[in-house]
Amino acid sequence: MSVDLNSDVGESYGRWELGDDAAVLAAVTSANVACGAHAGDASTLRRTCAEALAQDVIVGAQVGYRDLAGFGRRFVDMDPVELADDVVFQIGALEGLARVVGTRVRYVKPHGALYNAVVHHEEQAQAVVDAVRAYDPDLPVLGLPGSLLLQKAERAGLRPVREAFADRGYTPEGTLVSRRLEGAVLHDPVEVARRVVQMVVEGTITAVDGSTVKVDAESICVHGDSPGAVQMAEQVRARLLAAGVELVPFTRGLL
Amino acid sequence: MSVDLNSDVGESYGRWELGDDAAVLAAVTSANVACGAHAGDASTLRRTCAEALAQDVIVGAQVGYRDLAGFGRRFVDMDPVELADDVVFQIGALEGLARVVGTRVRYVKPHGALYNAVVHHEEQAQAVVDAVRAYDPDLPVLGLPGSLLLQKAERAGLRPVREAFADRGYTPEGTLVSRRLEGAVLHDPVEVARRVVQMVVEGTITAVDGSTVKVDAESICVHGDSPGAVQMAEQVRARLLAAGVELVPFTRGLL
Amino acid sequence: MSVDLNSDVGESYGRWELGDDAAVLAAVTSANVACGAHAGDASTLRRTCAEALAQDVIVGAQVGYRDLAGFGRRFVDMDPVELADDVVFQIGALEGLARVVGTRVRYVKPHGALYNAVVHHEEQAQAVVDAVRAYDPDLPVLGLPGSLLLQKAERAGLRPVREAFADRGYTPEGTLVSRRLEGAVLHDPVEVARRVVQMVVEGTITAVDGSTVKVDAESICVHGDSPGAVQMAEQVRARLLAAGVELVPFTRGLL
Amino acid sequence: MSVDLNSDVGESYGRWELGDDAAVLAAVTSANVACGAHAGDASTLRRTCAEALAQDVIVGAQVGYRDLAGFGRRFVDMDPVELADDVVFQIGALEGLARVVGTRVRYVKPHGALYNAVVHHEEQAQAVVDAVRAYDPDLPVLGLPGSLLLQKAERAGLRPVREAFADRGYTPEGTLVSRRLEGAVLHDPVEVARRVVQMVVEGTITAVDGSTVKVDAESICVHGDSPGAVQMAEQVRARLLAAGVELVPFTRGLL
Repeated sequence: MSVDLNSDVGESYGRWELGDDAAVLAAVTSANVACGAHAGDASTLRRTCAEALAQDVIVGAQVGYRDLAGFGRRFVDMDPVELADDVVFQIGALEGLARVVGTRVRYVKPHGALYNAVVHHEEQAQAVVDAVRAYDPDLPVLGLPGSLLLQKAERAGLRPVREAFADRGYTPEGTLVSRRLEGAVLHDPVEVARRVVQMVVEGTITAVDGSTVKVDAESICVHGDSPGAVQMAEQVRARLLAAGVELVPFTRGLL
Repeated sequence: MSVDLNSDVGESYGRWELGDDAAVLAAVTSANVACGAHAGDASTLRRTCAEALAQDVIVGAQVGYRDLAGFGRRFVDMDPVELADDVVFQIGALEGLARVVGTRVRYVKPHGALYNAVVHHEEQAQAVVDAVRAYDPDLPVLGLPGSLLLQKAERAGLRPVREAFADRGYTPEGTLVSRRLEGAVLHDPVEVARRVVQMVVEGTITAVDGSTVKVDAESICVHGDSPGAVQMAEQVRARLLAAGVELVPFTRGLL
Repeated sequence: MSVDLNSDVGESYGRWELGDDAAVLAAVTSANVACGAHAGDASTLRRTCAEALAQDVIVGAQVGYRDLAGFGRRFVDMDPVELADDVVFQIGALEGLARVVGTRVRYVKPHGALYNAVVHHEEQAQAVVDAVRAYDPDLPVLGLPGSLLLQKAERAGLRPVREAFADRGYTPEGTLVSRRLEGAVLHDPVEVARRVVQMVVEGTITAVDGSTVKVDAESICVHGDSPGAVQMAEQVRARLLAAGVELVPFTRGLL
Repeated sequence: MSVDLNSDVGESYGRWELGDDAAVLAAVTSANVACGAHAGDASTLRRTCAEALAQDVIVGAQVGYRDLAGFGRRFVDMDPVELADDVVFQIGALEGLARVVGTRVRYVKPHGALYNAVVHHEEQAQAVVDAVRAYDPDLPVLGLPGSLLLQKAERAGLRPVREAFADRGYTPEGTLVSRRLEGAVLHDPVEVARRVVQMVVEGTITAVDGSTVKVDAESICVHGDSPGAVQMAEQVRARLLAAGVELVPFTRGLL
């Protein structure tokens, strides 16, 4: 039994530091590295890729809206062609820096408001898929199960990779509890780690109403931008290993 | 007898258009395409690369300081490591867009204030060289004859490519007349084209004092960001062809 | 009989020039000056304010989304508090530059996608109103008749100013024809000028279906970012004057 | 006996937080608030101004080069007219946000590389002075004793305000020890606080060679962007008060 753990890294910018990337990279198997649009200056990207390589972690391009002030968390109603071009720009920029430290971009994951948009926004989901396919059709796309992004990725011949969230509550229908409702985010590292083990070993999660729902994910997303988050990622890793689950990048076997 | 003609393109940005890239690309053999730092949004870069390919023009990365408001024309006292990383970022971003239209980045040329800085600035010249070597040691570097950039490029095992300027006055020592002095810039297309033919065919140029000095250049830089400039580029091309000079990219034979 | 003519100016950015501001300012009575968010570097803003003052044109703050690459034409789903703060930032920045040349900001008009958003977007419309009221409750707000922006401005004790568009087609209901439909934009300067005279003198416009509908506007928006647009603005001005209409800023009598 | 304490605040940007502004504002009497060029989004600026007002701290405009990635710490060779315009833009933007919370900009202090440049750079020093004089000739300018900035400010009829640094080593000539040399920065809060008391009460400082040199400053700069820095600021404040020194803004009596 095995699973991938992914987390966002490389989100510092110049003087501003965010997250403890070294600690996060010690816990996960796949790194969603920012690409300069919502976060990540060039030196941060290069150092993050080098650290990922040193820790044997796979590098993915975490593409997003070009909006530093909003950290990519505001939907931007971009023309699909401009969005596709900007996604290519971002992947290419990160690939350049990955390359000089001896690694490369191995997958693509949308960030923030773009992640949410491509769950349901036809044109933007298609734009991301078009960008990845044009850049390199061998790059998997990481996203929300059931999202338009993953449906369109599959239809386009890309490999869709479904992820689950370690610290989010689930509805009885298997979707995420809205952040506006209670139970949306879990904070106890031990409880979160226990849930992740259940997701991976039994393929189920306990929903907010107590019912048991199926979860089918190749990767589990953990966070790393606060001290508590790092501890949670470490707990998740430790409990998975203790349960006999192997932690391997979802790209294993492809490279 | 042959020579390369290079010009800056891809310097529009969103709503703002600059230069008649299609006309310029019809005249030259190498295109210095902006990389998003001083100019060039992603869609502009992709379209410019596609047009260059269609016109059989080689794409180079025109790297510069990250300064849209200053168009890369203000010296920025960057840390060399940050500069090197940003140069890699820019080359990679352009390469991504070149790749999706079926071409690639074939050389690197610094832009604006960075071009001037690397003539004499030890650390920044070295940073650009380090960036290119780390990204791809097969990429030639285009710059000013005698510049630190070309000296360091050669020492690092990169191919230095010397360029001359079609519309600039030269001193008896073979350097450019300062823009603050009279005779720095020439405006008559016919006169400029005549001088370029002399540069290529005889390897000389008439300096501002009337003396004849040697010019040794593999590429001639022409401008394209004004109607007059395009006409000048077309004149230069026509006169060179009429003089029996073949126009070929300086990368010919390497690829 | 009198009316105000307004147009967008100050939308150059560094090396990139847009529009013939001097010609536009000679034709209009109110200038919507960009504020650095969607366009307009500081020197452009200062020069534009100086030119407006010289031509006896009133300066307004043309506030927009912070998005140079998109020229403020992409909706950004901003938090209302952040939007209000950014609107204040933009008005203040322009006011600083207006002040050093001896004038000041006399009204506020949203730009591009923000203009369209505040027609119907409750929170963003309220945010713009809140920003203006907090900055200076004596500043009028220029916008689309019937928009939430003008309704909320009025409710907040601000002065709403309704504008009509010189070169846009109108539906029988008195709204603008969608840009996706035929007849949305008119291109003949003489026809446009004739329609504007009808709007001002008779208070009506001929809709796309030939019916006559009422138009009640204190200001007419003309464009200036193309040679044809300038000519159109000049035609509108000339025909209005010939019809005995006085051209005065809508702020006349307030200052 | 009295002195002013100043510190940099408002340097967060969107998702990126920097410094504990509330703690710093509890310790100082003058706040150098960022203006969006090197740091500080609009909401951060508004909140910082409100907090300063609540803590009875004077707001100053901390103007700098437009360079988020470099945090204004890289010299940018700006045209003086463009620099002056950008300084006005920044002061105006901050003033807008200060105004909506009921306060205003009371002085100007250059930040980072601009601070260092205007010590000796004729044209940039003059540009900052020109900007302040044009915007409001009653605004004092805070800077390094002996700098061109303060000399030119005085000559222009502005009020120059000299500052000393709490945590920096001084040479026997009374200048700052270069950051490349040992003894440039002091880290012990108790020692730093003792030195500040000596500066204010005796008007002297012990230089790196043990000699005693004169210090003549109306304001003492303390830092606040690290936990240690906040503790240092608090120590400085406590020791000054314990020594019977009153802490008052240098603008006292002017407003």
